[in-house]
Amino acid sequence: MLDISLIGTGGMLPLKNRFLTAMVARLNGSMLLIDCGEGTQVTLKELGWGFKSLDVICFTHFHADHMVGLPGLLLTVGNSGRTEPITIVGPVGVREVVKALCVVAPVLPYELRFMELSFEGKEDFISLAAGNFAISAVGLDHRMDCIGYGLHVQRAGKFDAEKAKRQEIPVQLWGRLQKGESVEAEGRLYTPDMVLGPKRKGIKVSYVTDTRPTTALPQFIAGSDLFICEGLYGDDEEQPQAAKHAHMVFSEAAALAKAGNVKELWLTHYSPAMPDPEQYLENATRIFSNSKAGFDRMTATILFANE
Amino acid sequence: MLDISLIGTGGMLPLKNRFLTAMVARLNGSMLLIDCGEGTQVTLKELGWGFKSLDVICFTHFHADHMVGLPGLLLTVGNSGRTEPITIVGPVGVREVVKALCVVAPVLPYELRFMELSFEGKEDFISLAAGNFAISAVGLDHRMDCIGYGLHVQRAGKFDAEKAKRQEIPVQLWGRLQKGESVEAEGRLYTPDMVLGPKRKGIKVSYVTDTRPTTALPQFIAGSDLFICEGLYGDDEEQPQAAKHAHMVFSEAAALAKAGNVKELWLTHYSPAMPDPEQYLENATRIFSNSKAGFDRMTATILFANE
Repeated sequence: MLDISLIGTGGMLPLKNRFLTAMVARLNGSMLLIDCGEGTQVTLKELGWGFKSLDVICFTHFHADHMVGLPGLLLTVGNSGRTEPITIVGPVGVREVVKALCVVAPVLPYELRFMELSFEGKEDFISLAAGNFAISAVGLDHRMDCIGYGLHVQRAGKFDAEKAKRQEIPVQLWGRLQKGESVEAEGRLYTPDMVLGPKRKGIKVSYVTDTRPTTALPQFIAGSDLFICEGLYGDDEEQPQAAKHAHMVFSEAAALAKAGNVKELWLTHYSPAMPDPEQYLENATRIFSNSKAGFDRMTATILFANE
Repeated sequence: MLDISLIGTGGMLPLKNRFLTAMVARLNGSMLLIDCGEGTQVTLKELGWGFKSLDVICFTHFHADHMVGLPGLLLTVGNSGRTEPITIVGPVGVREVVKALCVVAPVLPYELRFMELSFEGKEDFISLAAGNFAISAVGLDHRMDCIGYGLHVQRAGKFDAEKAKRQEIPVQLWGRLQKGESVEAEGRLYTPDMVLGPKRKGIKVSYVTDTRPTTALPQFIAGSDLFICEGLYGDDEEQPQAAKHAHMVFSEAAALAKAGNVKELWLTHYSPAMPDPEQYLENATRIFSNSKAGFDRMTATILFANE
């Protein structure tokens, strides 16, 4: 199961009760953060998941409201006792930008490792593994290079005792094979697929900010259990303004959710000029009914589907 | 008159209800900020003095908890419509550190101007003028170069009509001379001192963090109307720990206040491990009775003394 929390939902400007847009995921005791604006460590502390198990930080792009909290967070993670490396993922140049920001945090008790991603075409998807996480990435359409992310939890097939018996697999190996281990015994290699049925549907969460809608997004987010998407403004009348700044309004996010056939949409990255996003939620729900207005520390635990 | 607000009082780690240590001063519609940690723009917005009139930013030193909020603040000041330059004062190197931090805020609608200060000896004081402000600076004793600041508001002498008459100064010039203007009329230069009595006591506010007590500080803060001083811990038993990290406990700050014969002491820069500084205030008041435990947005208006 995958825990997700929107630790901030504000665009551009941190407000007292709305931190800057970011999300955190937790899987098997490991945390992944997407973006880290000013104050992210404060709301993360409020969330109560701790700091030490932060294994991966993904950056969407290099605007201040998505990055400035990094040095403070890294120092706090250091104070939590962490000594294991942290992997930082982002557009090409992320290593240099992080190095510059960390001028005020030059010494950390752990290593930073970088994965820089470049997209030649807007329809290209990249898959990568960092820490416990299987991640997909897509190029977005913002005023600078910007990345949308997907988090994926694979699910093995069901244990199939008949299949195991048919292949004469010793019963004492069943447990280890079922857990995904391969075992060599008496000169024969046993692999998990010998005792498992076909792979089952896993979990998929997609996170898309800051961008205009793109033609690649419906496929990138397709079938997501949760689609977290920016909506700078709720009112459709603000669409030209949103487009001018390479952002979306709620109805555009909802249209993507519908096109991608996702299960649920959470809106985020609100303009500081919009104090009550709920007021405009109907602009999303009339297009995609399972739309919700995200708020700081809105949290969900996503389980595997029953099958 | 000078308005002072402690916009944050926390050390190291921003907390939900205690922002990082910083102060802002307002004089004749111009603002000066000392330090800018993560979240300073949030608490500054709460204070309600606006952003556009921020003319000067002084940095004590280059630790993350005193600097990371700068890029976000500068962008917000830009969005407020400011186009006039901002002067940034700090230890030598401040230009390079600010340039690095602003990698995520590369374009601002105004110029940044820098004043870099270097102290050969710990007993040296520097005086400078930036924006509306007369500023003094002293080297502190921290784990890196660190500066204590003084803000000074001069006060001219009283208007002295007898003195003006004695010097046969035309009555129609009295008003302009009284306001501090020099006037040339009929081949003679008239200066304000011709109509004013001796200079009167002005206003002095001193701001000292992060440091151990130094021998120069009593003289530097001497006679301050308000002395704002760090106290990482309240409990005297934590003194060795405070000293190890080049900080002070409350009683050390109070001893400085007493030695400097200041009018009032405000404590700030509390350890995140100390949720209730009031609990330890007696450790300061027993040494210097007019000691107060600072809190976020604690504000005072300091007037000229009656004389």
